[in-house]
This record gives sequence, C-alpha cells and structure tokens, in this order.
Amino acid sequence: MFNNFNQLSVAAAALLFAIGGQNFAAGAETPEQTAAMLAQRASANSGAMEILNSLTTEIGPRLAGSDAEKNAAAWARQRFEKLGFDKVWVEKFPLAHGWVRGEENAEIISPSPQPLVVCALGSSVATPPGGIEAEVALFKTYDELLAMPTNSLTGKIAVVTQPMVRAQDGSGYSALNKIRTAGPGEAARRGAVAYLLRSLGTDSHRLPHTGATHYPEDAPPIPAAALSVPDAEQLDRLAALGRPVRVRLRLTPHDLGPVTSQNVIAELTGREIPDELVLLGAHLDSWDLGTGAIDDGAGVAIVMAAANMIRELPKRPRRTVRVVLFGSEECGLLGGKAYAEAHQTELSHYVVVAEPDFGQGPVYRFQTGVANPEEPSLKRIRAALAPLGVIPGDNNSGGESDVGPLAKLHVPTVTLELDGTDYFDFHHTPDDTFDKIKPERINQSTAAYVVFTYLAAELDGDYRKPVALRTK
Amino acid sequence: MFNNFNQLSVAAAALLFAIGGQNFAAGAETPEQTAAMLAQRASANSGAMEILNSLTTEIGPRLAGSDAEKNAAAWARQRFEKLGFDKVWVEKFPLAHGWVRGEENAEIISPSPQPLVVCALGSSVATPPGGIEAEVALFKTYDELLAMPTNSLTGKIAVVTQPMVRAQDGSGYSALNKIRTAGPGEAARRGAVAYLLRSLGTDSHRLPHTGATHYPEDAPPIPAAALSVPDAEQLDRLAALGRPVRVRLRLTPHDLGPVTSQNVIAELTGREIPDELVLLGAHLDSWDLGTGAIDDGAGVAIVMAAANMIRELPKRPRRTVRVVLFGSEECGLLGGKAYAEAHQTELSHYVVVAEPDFGQGPVYRFQTGVANPEEPSLKRIRAALAPLGVIPGDNNSGGESDVGPLAKLHVPTVTLELDGTDYFDFHHTPDDTFDKIKPERINQSTAAYVVFTYLAAELDGDYRKPVALRTK
Repeated sequence: MFNNFNQLSVAAAALLFAIGGQNFAAGAETPEQTAAMLAQRASANSGAMEILNSLTTEIGPRLAGSDAEKNAAAWARQRFEKLGFDKVWVEKFPLAHGWVRGEENAEIISPSPQPLVVCALGSSVATPPGGIEAEVALFKTYDELLAMPTNSLTGKIAVVTQPMVRAQDGSGYSALNKIRTAGPGEAARRGAVAYLLRSLGTDSHRLPHTGATHYPEDAPPIPAAALSVPDAEQLDRLAALGRPVRVRLRLTPHDLGPVTSQNVIAELTGREIPDELVLLGAHLDSWDLGTGAIDDGAGVAIVMAAANMIRELPKRPRRTVRVVLFGSEECGLLGGKAYAEAHQTELSHYVVVAEPDFGQGPVYRFQTGVANPEEPSLKRIRAALAPLGVIPGDNNSGGESDVGPLAKLHVPTVTLELDGTDYFDFHHTPDDTFDKIKPERINQSTAAYVVFTYLAAELDGDYRKPVALRTK
Repeated sequence: MFNNFNQLSVAAAALLFAIGGQNFAAGAETPEQTAAMLAQRASANSGAMEILNSLTTEIGPRLAGSDAEKNAAAWARQRFEKLGFDKVWVEKFPLAHGWVRGEENAEIISPSPQPLVVCALGSSVATPPGGIEAEVALFKTYDELLAMPTNSLTGKIAVVTQPMVRAQDGSGYSALNKIRTAGPGEAARRGAVAYLLRSLGTDSHRLPHTGATHYPEDAPPIPAAALSVPDAEQLDRLAALGRPVRVRLRLTPHDLGPVTSQNVIAELTGREIPDELVLLGAHLDSWDLGTGAIDDGAGVAIVMAAANMIRELPKRPRRTVRVVLFGSEECGLLGGKAYAEAHQTELSHYVVVAEPDFGQGPVYRFQTGVANPEEPSLKRIRAALAPLGVIPGDNNSGGESDVGPLAKLHVPTVTLELDGTDYFDFHHTPDDTFDKIKPERINQSTAAYVVFTYLAAELDGDYRKPVALRTK
C-alpha cells in the first residue's frame, strides 16, 4: 500500500511543481498555487521529522502532569518563540490526580510456572505489596464477561482475551476499547479481585498496550493490567488444556494527588480578519512506556511544521491560524476540556478546527463536520488535496480527541483522516519510538495539513453550524 | 520469498504423491518412494506444531540448569516413551554455575531523563544494589572500542551501538557476536565499570536480545547488558547532540553455584546394522525471556517429529536413528560437550550427525561435512530433497551448535540449512514465542529432515572421514 502511495506522491509533487512553481516566482499566484507550492515543499521536507526527533529524543516520554510534560511544554513554547510566531502563551490547568507507574510483574503459578508480560492500565490501583494470587476466570469475549451474574467471579482474576481487528480507520479499536476503559469496573461488580485484558493492539510482540481505565462509583477499584498479545494467547492455550490456571499479579503504581498540566498556544495573526480562527490541535503528553512518537508526537510535528510553513510565506493568511498543543489528553482529554471551558466566549470565532491524533499517516481522506459540506471553498480544498492522494469523505467528523470538546459545542471540524493500518501495532506500547516514523509518510501528512490550513485561513467560506452561530 | 516457497511446496507435494503414493500401498517401494511419501505427509502435517505448542505452552522458558529445563527433559522422555521409541534414556551432567536473571533497569540521568530498555547478558555479574551511574563512552563500532588504549575508559560505561546486518545464513550474527561474548572483557581491560551493547538483532522493537558473555581471566567482571535496538538508536541520537550522557544501570542477577543439567536420548534401533548411528540433535534449553519457540523449540519439534514419522513406518531403517535433545546449549554448548566426552568410544559408529538450531526454516540448502561429498547415496539424498526446494550446498558443514563438539572429533556432519532471514528478529528476546511459528515453514523443515534421515539410515554409503575412521 505504501509503495503505491509513494508513487502517487512523487507524481503529485511533479504535478504540483508544474502548477505552482513558476507563477509563484512571478508573484501573482492564486491561493491554489500557493497551496500547491506549500504541498510540494512539505512533500520534499516539511520539517516534521526534525521536530519529532527533537521532542522524542530530548524530552522522551511525557506523562500527563509530570515534569517531563512540563519540559515538553517549555520546549514547545521556546520553539514557537524562536520561530517567530506572532503570539505564544501557556494556559495551565489542574489535574486532580497525577498517576505514576511502578513495578509490574505477573506469572503463571500453576499448572506451568512461567512469567507473563503485563503493564498496569493508566490510573490502576496497586495490588497489595506481595501481589494478588488467584485462579483465572478467562473470557474469550467481553460479552461473555458481561453475561456473568453478580458475585460469580468472587476471588477470581478476570481475564478477557478478545482479539482486536486491524482496520485502517481505527474502528477495530473503537469497537473494543470499553474492554479496557469499563472492563475493570464490570469485573469488580461481579466480585473479581483483579482484571487482565489482552492488549488492544494488532501486533504480536511481548509489548503490552497501556491506556486509561475508569473505575465506576458502584464497585471497588481493582488492579487492572494489559497482557501482551502473545501472553494472552499463551493463557488461551493453557486454559484450553482444562486445568485451573493460577496467576499472581503485582502492580505498584501510585497516585500523586493534585498536579498541574498545561496547553501551549501559538498564533499567526490573520492579516484581514484576525478574530476568525482556524485551529490546529495535537497533544504534547504521551504514555510513559514509549517516547510518544506516533501518539501524538507525530501530530505535534505535523501541526507545528504546517503552521511554520505558513509563517514563512511572504504574508499572513487572511484569518488567524492558532496551534494548540494540549496537555493531559491520555488521562481523559483534560487539556481539551480545560481549553473548551476557558475559551467558551469565543466559540463563534472558530471557522474550523482540526487535529491529527492517529499517527504519522499518510492522510487518505478528508472528512468534514460542518453546516454545509458543499460550501464552495470546501470544494476548492478537496480539489487541492486530491493530488496528494486524499479522497473526499463524509460530513460526520466529530473532531479528533482534544478538539472533541469544542466539536460538542458545535464548533465546525474537519478530520484529515490518517491511515491507521499499523497504528495499533505501536499505540500505547514501549515501541512507540522515533525509529517507527518514515519521512515520506509524515511529510505527506504535513503537506495535506498545510494545504487545508492555508486555504481555510485564506479563502472565503463560513463552515459554522447554526447552533454555533447562535452562541455568538 | 515464503510465497514462492509455498507454491513450490504445493507443487512438490503433488509431485511426491505421484511418485510415492501408489507403490507404497503395493509394498514394493524403493527408498526414494518411501522418502517421498514421508515428505508428503510431513508437508501436510508433520506433528511438529503440536510438539512445539506443548513444549512452549506447558513448559515455557527453560533456562540451563533450571527446574524448568528438568521439567522439559521429563516432558521429552515421557513423549519418547509414550510414542514407543526402542530406547529412551537421560544422561546427566554437572554445571559449575547456574545463573538466574534478576531485576534490570537502566535510565538516562542527563541530559534528558528517560528510561532505557535493557536485559542482562547471560552470566553477567550484578551491579551494586543501587546501580552504577556513570558517563557513557559510546562507540559506533566495536573496532573503535578495541582501538582505545588501556585505562582510557576508567569510570565510564562503555556502549557499543554497531548495527547488525540481516543475512539469510546468519553471517550477520557470526560477524558481530564477539561484541556480546568478548565486549565486556575488552571494556573492563580499558577501565570501564559497566558495558552495554546494541542488541545483536535485526528487529526494531523495545525488546533486548540476551545471550552468553564470557569474562576473561585478566580483567574484572563488569555488569553487562543489551539495549533494545530503539534504545541504542536513542543513545546514538543523544550522543550526537554533543553533551555528556549519564546513564544509571542496575542489574541483580545471581550465581546459583553448581547445578545439574541433562541430555535426553531416544533411539530407533536399526534393523540390519544397529551399531551404525544417524544422529539428530537439537537443544531443549532456552533463554529465560521467551519460551524458546524458534531457539530451539523448533529444532526439538523438527527432530522429534521426523524421527517419529520414521518410527511409524512398517519397518525400521537399516541403521539406528538416535535423537539427542541436549541441555545447556545457551550457556556454552555444555550438553554437546558432555555428550561428546561421554560417547568418545563410539565415535566411529556415527555415520552422520545433523542438528537444526536456526529456527523454523524452511530448509533451503543441503550442506555436507563428509569425506566424499560425491558419494552416491549423498547424490540420491540431494535428488530427494530437490522437490522440497532444497538446493545443494558446499562441503564445509561443521555441525550446528550441539553437534559441533562431535564434528571437531571428525564425525561426519550435514547441515540442512534453515532460512534465517527473520531469525534474529526474535532470537534471545521475550518475543521468541509460539505465535511466531508458521505450520508451512516448520512442516517443510521437518519434511527435509525426515527425507535426509530416512535415506541416510536406509541407504548404503559411508560418509566418514579418514581421521574419524582411525579412532575406531
């Protein structure tokens, strides 16, 4: 697939050069010609690789509320200031609970003693210091667990080993992520003393996938961890032999209590209508296991690089381009919620918001969530994206992660859909590192973002929904 | 590549059926027809998958000298006895040092605090309980380390980040494995307080590759560990920024002192010349991180399944087929050396010995290490292997791992060369697990082994070297 994409991309770059190159030099370019020139430059070298290398190498993992996340915010602020963005500021917000991973061990006690590779889910409580040893109740699907009556799992470690399907648009993940977010609560309601799930992932490595879980009010919080995919399959095979399987689980995470996090914001002030905003988001925090290269360092690099290419133009676009690098996404969209709360009075100013939070791409589809998807400037944006290999999508965009809270307030959104075919091979694992990023993929994504962002900020066109307009 | 192999294999099975199927029923088959029938059966279902599933699931990891290795030996003995092999026995031998992994942590202290994924090398000494913190001296190649003068690394942690080349025949590994086996000693001679190497592996996962190291007499033993490939690349990038890099390493392995290990031996007694031996070896022990599916569970499964298919024939071959499942290969070929020592008086009885210890295959080349590679029965064996996609090799076989000590005593060997293109993606990592095994690959390997073994035991042909004959 990416071979085809590469050929397409080379052809697109040549075409764009033919369209955009000459006239730009002559100084009489149309918005489409400027966009084509930006796409050509981004496809060759958008600057995203350098940004992502710096973030993942010099900061590394950046857990919500941690010192490393604060270092990442300082890194971002300094970058924006040094590049010469028109405004740069930081908005702090409180987190009720900072969470820190501890040690994590699991092992099969009987019938065949051997270690298991696990990681605690984000916000999991600890086991007693010596761990929890219990018989396993293994469910091949989550529905089988839900079908169990109250107290039927008393004293057991509940294990769900349902495999996840590989899907380009991430639907394999969204179909199952309640197994991680709600599973521990459902198991606890049935009396389980701990909870394990097969990692929500499409790889077959001994690397578990972490991620947030949420304890309900009506059940005790029980320790919750993810097994690597091969370890879940090993439990499936052992359970199939018919003898009881006993497992010991030991987790030592702890709650830091209240901490602070922050959103970093930078703007290119519009030259004609500065109070109309085109907002690009991404999140600076990452899980602690990897260095957050695909989640969401790639998004940070794409939006920083795209905005910076617009900054380098001889003149600012007509509308303001705002970049928001959110904090504390992974523990529950806390940066996105804090931003939407703090910026309630300016909701009518958002022409459109967009966020890449699904890896390095390429972008393969342009989805909108606007009042009128046939609005003329949107047609021009679709036409400008087509040479990059981006097809039109539907009008059901709800905004990726951090801009979701704005979308819920009826702010118009678009989603430049990233190809997530291999995203869940690395997502939330120690393997989410810089070596997984391919220049041709992240440069194409940045090209699509710069084309969309420039045209949305330069062209006429009102995408706002009636409800959003009413809040004006 | 494996697609081509699959097509070939289907074609071969059809051809073999045409050659072997009918006459076998008539009871007048030639040795080639019997071999073709065995190849056809093995290609369809050799039984190797079931054996390997059982070993890796029910026993799991089986470190040299451990209880798990003893459980694996009991498992193998029971299997051979239950199948009805003519003789089954166990030969114990002492290990001067049992070694057990402990905790292992590493982290960058400055300039960018972040964790590193490492594993102790086999037989590494421990760090002090609080770990060792020191500045890193990073070498992009091993030769750069060797070029350093005595005491030039005093107080430093020496790090070698030389990458390994992917090669079908394993030459990428053999060219570099001194970095692991001899590197700690070379670093200690120059004053280093600890040693890290980029894992000898061809993957890009956060899974380090362990393996044995050997401390020389003339230098202090220093703690030695492997970095995962992405972690080594992270250190390369940080070092390139030009600021000193400080790392903390903590390892808590320990030496158990003297323990015992064992070789498990099973025979099919030859019907005409029982004191002439065709020996198949493989090793039962594995490293502790994975479940030893490719190293060397696959070899165990291939030789057990191949020998068992010969056992199922209406009559035994003319010569004796002996299977030896060696113990304690990973810590220095101790089972192979103990066997060669204990069987010195029967060296002249070995017609030929062979061992698969390079993963699941397929077998792609037939290499000999015999007095006369043009001996007529060897030509017949090569012809019988050709339909499986096995090409002729040279006469430089030195015997794979455990049978190496016999080869050094001039016993004739062959190597059915296994395709190791992806072997070092998994070798000595937590990822060496059953899910990596593909039935079509291990069945082809077993088919090649059963064809070779049956014909070597049935046909006339003396492969022995003049030197081996003299020890008669």
